[in-house]
Amino acid sequence: MTDLTVMGTRAKAAARECGKTGTNDKNEVLKAVADALLKNESAITEANKRDLKLAKENNMKPAMVDRLTITKNRLEGMAEGLRQLTALEDPIGEVTRMWTRPNGLRIGAMRVPLGVIGIIYESRPNVTVDSFGLTFKAGNAVILKGGSDSLESNRKLVEIIREVLKEKGHNPDAIQLIEDTDHAVVTELLHLNAYVDVIIPRGGKGLIKHCVENSSVPVIETGTGNCHIFVDESADIPKAVQIINNAKTQRIGVCNACESLVIHENILNKALPAIIDELKKSNVEVRGDEAALAADSRVVHATEEDWGTEYLDYIISVKTVKSVDEAIEHINRYNTGHSESILTKDYENSQKFLKEIDAAAVYVNASTRFTDGFEFGFGAEIGISTQKLHARGPMGLLALTTTKYIIYGDGQIR
Amino acid sequence: MTDLTVMGTRAKAAARECGKTGTNDKNEVLKAVADALLKNESAITEANKRDLKLAKENNMKPAMVDRLTITKNRLEGMAEGLRQLTALEDPIGEVTRMWTRPNGLRIGAMRVPLGVIGIIYESRPNVTVDSFGLTFKAGNAVILKGGSDSLESNRKLVEIIREVLKEKGHNPDAIQLIEDTDHAVVTELLHLNAYVDVIIPRGGKGLIKHCVENSSVPVIETGTGNCHIFVDESADIPKAVQIINNAKTQRIGVCNACESLVIHENILNKALPAIIDELKKSNVEVRGDEAALAADSRVVHATEEDWGTEYLDYIISVKTVKSVDEAIEHINRYNTGHSESILTKDYENSQKFLKEIDAAAVYVNASTRFTDGFEFGFGAEIGISTQKLHARGPMGLLALTTTKYIIYGDGQIR
Repeated sequence: MTDLTVMGTRAKAAARECGKTGTNDKNEVLKAVADALLKNESAITEANKRDLKLAKENNMKPAMVDRLTITKNRLEGMAEGLRQLTALEDPIGEVTRMWTRPNGLRIGAMRVPLGVIGIIYESRPNVTVDSFGLTFKAGNAVILKGGSDSLESNRKLVEIIREVLKEKGHNPDAIQLIEDTDHAVVTELLHLNAYVDVIIPRGGKGLIKHCVENSSVPVIETGTGNCHIFVDESADIPKAVQIINNAKTQRIGVCNACESLVIHENILNKALPAIIDELKKSNVEVRGDEAALAADSRVVHATEEDWGTEYLDYIISVKTVKSVDEAIEHINRYNTGHSESILTKDYENSQKFLKEIDAAAVYVNASTRFTDGFEFGFGAEIGISTQKLHARGPMGLLALTTTKYIIYGDGQIR
Repeated sequence: MTDLTVMGTRAKAAARECGKTGTNDKNEVLKAVADALLKNESAITEANKRDLKLAKENNMKPAMVDRLTITKNRLEGMAEGLRQLTALEDPIGEVTRMWTRPNGLRIGAMRVPLGVIGIIYESRPNVTVDSFGLTFKAGNAVILKGGSDSLESNRKLVEIIREVLKEKGHNPDAIQLIEDTDHAVVTELLHLNAYVDVIIPRGGKGLIKHCVENSSVPVIETGTGNCHIFVDESADIPKAVQIINNAKTQRIGVCNACESLVIHENILNKALPAIIDELKKSNVEVRGDEAALAADSRVVHATEEDWGTEYLDYIISVKTVKSVDEAIEHINRYNTGHSESILTKDYENSQKFLKEIDAAAVYVNASTRFTDGFEFGFGAEIGISTQKLHARGPMGLLALTTTKYIIYGDGQIR
């Protein structure tokens, strides 16, 4: 098995260099990597074909085969992603605030890279390129552990990136790939506290849970989304219909899609049929409580399990409540801390909802689908954090940085 | 054993209430607890005496007995600490920035409580009161697990605080104490992810290490300090003497004390004797490399182990270097990411040191002893983080909060 302490030592040394690299030099590398990816298209797709051949022999599911596949178009997408990063402001070196103490010490908080970032992901080679771009732009070194089904593709991509780093006079260990397919190597990576500053799992529920439960290195949890929309009694029904349809059906397999409606009983009979009319155009199955069943005959019976389920499918649940307080209580009980929205014309209820809902993103009169680094204007996204420490909600480059205090003195003693 | 899921459920419910409690109401509680502590002095010291009796029977070390002891004076200190918290700005509800997207969505980052905080500490009853004050002011509920030797004292203190909460119409579960002395309860607390948002260990190296290595709940690591002072060749020697003496001897047992000197070879012969003259007034043992041994006969031989040791004692190590780069390399290799200082008159070296040293606090021409929540002007301190995620350096009330995005829309869909 790979000696991860050797890899960790190299990553740490590279991270020091990355942290000192200026913005122009980092952007040069990103552009050169983008060019190199396109130039090496045939070598990359060759490697990818070897992965695909094995995957098909192993009866991989079509959706996963699709994610594993690198086409010319997708390679151009990866290159374009890197180019877009060059346009983003470099977060490193910013002093976010600076103040003077009575003894004359001037204290500032300076944004610096996290250091070494470990990224564990499934068999999606685009994550390899994307993770390098984001971590490198924020001045970090990265250790990647991708799904074993994508090993050939990842090896080729990493080889190309390392080659560019060398050519440009940088330490190639800014990106390293763990090639072992042995599961024990992941466990070792999760305990590499002396070398790795943070682990970011990018993938499904199982992968994230495994990292959170087993890592002694701090983990940024990018979680699942059981997102709700609460239709208050004063909601504008035509707008509600559009927002709910958008949040449910615009893209069903994503974490910011709406999975559950909470409806005030006073608007139920008027709103629900209109909402279902629209949802049925996409054949959405509507599972509701007794009141919802009584309000519309197209509703089928919901069980307790439905309230806690992230369907990622053409299914939505409907819960009826007597008040905004009951809605907040229900949502705070069943949500996953991702995105929640209230549709209302009532000032007081909007403020109460914003204040009391416990989630990364809380909306008034908008679709939950906006919880996204690009939609928030961050220009990039490494994931959406559903934990509360360090970063919460869509994470852009800033989530890949930390701060240190810099203190200017002239001889102060205590 | 206590059913921690019951405790967790109660804490979560209390946290919701704490998060909604206004600043004036929170301050009222803090003042009332301060009063109640003083009013119940005899009951508290009685309980403390029971702990002390057992501790002495168990041959507890004098330093630990001292930490366990509650005197009238110390009780007044605890009450005063709570009163001081009332003067601090309430961090909750602040919207740190707000911007408008092209589609008209207004997105803001609002500061909110973390939720439920677990604090694990040793037999120091003052931490019980202090932890409650800080977590409550920042709108959180706290679950405490103190050292078993302080159980009687903690039980009485928590009883008094809960009584005040009830009297003032608040949920007493804003503070709960785990009374089990079974070690398994700590393990369970460290895996209570469904209820506890963060664990903060407050205590020695062993306790912190145990939490970091075994917790699936995120941990804020408050670490040890192997702090260095680098005497550059252009340093002002009289100032250097004062700063080093202050950083080493003003209080030896603390994490921001200086443990190691790094000296430029060109100033060694002039600076080291003057520094040692001053340190010898406090009988500091000086352990150095070959060059330091040659420069002053009072230096004894340092081994490799010395470079990585946090003495917390009247001992200091001396390493000689040829350049600021070598100094930075040495410090980044052996430090614990706490506090490091350069003494110099050189502009370029000061900037290089500030930029390249990897630590929570990096100083120019000042004592490392200033790394402290009060000295930084935060008005309170829950500890000094030596990790990079979430909070780094002295942690005040802000470290006990997170943010959530609030989004104002008027019907936006994607």
